[in-house]
Amino acid sequence: MNFLNEIAHLHPGAISFAPGRPFEGFFETGQVHDYLRRFEQYLKEEKGYGDEEVRRTFFQYGRTNGIIHELIADHLRADEGISVPAGSVVVTVGCQEAMFLVLRALRRDDRDVVLAVSPSYVGLKGAARLVDMPVLEVAGGPDGIDMDSLAATVREARANGLRPRACYLVPDFSNPAGTSMDLETRQAVLAFAEQEDLLLLEDNPYGYFSADGVRLPTLKALDTHRRVVYLGSFAKTGLPGARIGFAVADQSVAGADGEVGLFADQLSKIKSMVTVNTSPIAQAVIAGKLLTYGNSLLKANEREIAVYRGNLERLLAGLSRHFPAGGGSGVRWNTPRGGFFLVLDVPFAADEKLLEVSARDYGVLWTPMRYFSTEDAAERQIRLSYSLVTPEQIDEGLERFAALVADRLNG
Amino acid sequence: MNFLNEIAHLHPGAISFAPGRPFEGFFETGQVHDYLRRFEQYLKEEKGYGDEEVRRTFFQYGRTNGIIHELIADHLRADEGISVPAGSVVVTVGCQEAMFLVLRALRRDDRDVVLAVSPSYVGLKGAARLVDMPVLEVAGGPDGIDMDSLAATVREARANGLRPRACYLVPDFSNPAGTSMDLETRQAVLAFAEQEDLLLLEDNPYGYFSADGVRLPTLKALDTHRRVVYLGSFAKTGLPGARIGFAVADQSVAGADGEVGLFADQLSKIKSMVTVNTSPIAQAVIAGKLLTYGNSLLKANEREIAVYRGNLERLLAGLSRHFPAGGGSGVRWNTPRGGFFLVLDVPFAADEKLLEVSARDYGVLWTPMRYFSTEDAAERQIRLSYSLVTPEQIDEGLERFAALVADRLNG
Repeated sequence: MNFLNEIAHLHPGAISFAPGRPFEGFFETGQVHDYLRRFEQYLKEEKGYGDEEVRRTFFQYGRTNGIIHELIADHLRADEGISVPAGSVVVTVGCQEAMFLVLRALRRDDRDVVLAVSPSYVGLKGAARLVDMPVLEVAGGPDGIDMDSLAATVREARANGLRPRACYLVPDFSNPAGTSMDLETRQAVLAFAEQEDLLLLEDNPYGYFSADGVRLPTLKALDTHRRVVYLGSFAKTGLPGARIGFAVADQSVAGADGEVGLFADQLSKIKSMVTVNTSPIAQAVIAGKLLTYGNSLLKANEREIAVYRGNLERLLAGLSRHFPAGGGSGVRWNTPRGGFFLVLDVPFAADEKLLEVSARDYGVLWTPMRYFSTEDAAERQIRLSYSLVTPEQIDEGLERFAALVADRLNG
Repeated sequence: MNFLNEIAHLHPGAISFAPGRPFEGFFETGQVHDYLRRFEQYLKEEKGYGDEEVRRTFFQYGRTNGIIHELIADHLRADEGISVPAGSVVVTVGCQEAMFLVLRALRRDDRDVVLAVSPSYVGLKGAARLVDMPVLEVAGGPDGIDMDSLAATVREARANGLRPRACYLVPDFSNPAGTSMDLETRQAVLAFAEQEDLLLLEDNPYGYFSADGVRLPTLKALDTHRRVVYLGSFAKTGLPGARIGFAVADQSVAGADGEVGLFADQLSKIKSMVTVNTSPIAQAVIAGKLLTYGNSLLKANEREIAVYRGNLERLLAGLSRHFPAGGGSGVRWNTPRGGFFLVLDVPFAADEKLLEVSARDYGVLWTPMRYFSTEDAAERQIRLSYSLVTPEQIDEGLERFAALVADRLNG
């Protein structure tokens, strides 16, 4: 991804379908102050804190697993139908730290491996590399996960003396594929995890951004056997700059000393050696936003959801216009039901060389899918992100992209 | 340390000389808002940012190595006489993340080890455990480091096929020993590091809290050969709740690909897999404080420095009163020149059993030195922290502690 950043830096005028960043149009600096004050009010009025306790909460070191775990548990109940004890919520420095903590906890020796649906998020692979844990790719396909591939990967890993500890997946509007799992697939994955004694690491940064209003239950909401470690992020729904994420780890597990405790408490021990605790000021900002919207991120993101829906419609319409079915361009795409991303199949190699040409000569940026997968198909795929662009940029960006495709086909 | 927390929780009325937390008396919730606004003003007036750029800086994802690196470099120049390029500063989630990143970067395989002056900070040991890097103890002694022990430890490690990569040390008012290195020792350590091709990890959370006004140059300020990775913390001098620390890593190093680059850039790659970036809001709070005090933490902490100096004087006077020289109590202590901590030698085992008795029957808490060292001497040593107590608590706490000692000697 460094190359992409450099290219973007070199061509500031290029329209970019690359970054998976949330829409910026509703940011207001005053919100930070409002949210901080709202949390202060909550501490005083609802928790009964005195002034000294409030000051200490904001200023001093705090609980390793965070201070807004109760509000997050309330929010999960309200928005997701997920019912977990607040003590199983570990507040982290973004979802990235949550992934790191979970993988570090699962990694005991060289035989432990993690599975990940391919193409998969680079952050998961990065965290795995950092804890020296191999990532085994499971085919994704149009349903979000290929169950045969999952079973085969687990079987082969075991035959090779490895211990598959968990499978990482994004059931809703995944990054980068934009795919979602239907209810049947969700239930099949849960049953498989139970049968094979596997954890599921469910990452859900985009689940609120349904384009058609349909939201399926998360794996965690369906998780009757505590097979799911839920990885939460407020980067897209809350405020990216707070860098607050969380893990829900309500499993009972035996520690190194043989004593059985909550998986969240194991994560806490590791967190104390990585970041000690998450900034209470940053947590307060997110808590203030949750409190402002009655603990509902769905309500908090009504305007953003509409923006992303509109952008997706515009992008799909534009693609159909530029690359009509039967038109012979060879360009095809999936139709995500929400989220930030869409994947294009193109009839030529989508590599860094082409990306450079695209930026320099055509003024348009995108992400090669080969960054996310070693599968052959990814060589000729492109991820288009539509979260940070305006409708006008979508139209103009597609014009430019279509020119690139035309020249490629004719040249 | 968990035991200590539990004991503290069970006996809320106990006077505690345990936590190494900064004084709370000057905390004001409004400061958080003031500092945020001050940073906003800086972005607009000194950096020339427009409103949109300001909002993006606060709200959006940011640069992996941080957004206040220039201000930190200015502060190091002003307060420490350390002159380093801003690009070598990596802003982290507390100093703990800085330690983790550095150790992870130094750890290539099982032969890499880190040395640490004993007794040493638990956070360093925790980070080392997390990256599976053994910690070899170097004797500390009254000068902060025993040079013979350092040389012997390096020699023995190499004889055993190990690679000593770095030595961790706190030259100023160390935690937990309260010792400081004189100028001669600092120069000897730097020369040794150069001769033996070793990095020095200089941790400096307490350097501003000199009790007698004398401040010696840090190792980094004396570092003409880029042997020192400086680990900085704003937890004691800035605002603990911001959880902002940093590393200065201005070394040129070869990466995995053989390409030579700044050590800070290697840390950046690792950071992107742990926390992605540090909350810009949390960074803004610290930046605002730096800007408010003309980039000088010495100026920002004038009141705190006076509090800690007064507390140390009161503690030393009380100890002399309760345990006069020649009085036969067998209680001795060192005389720190600053910082938060003092170490007592006691004529009995200072273990968790005694700590429990001390809390329950005498109402006073302290930290067993055995938490920080495996050396025999630590078995009968106690760390007293005087940063978070009032003068009255010091007097009353020492009364209680003296009663414990008397009963122990007579019983």
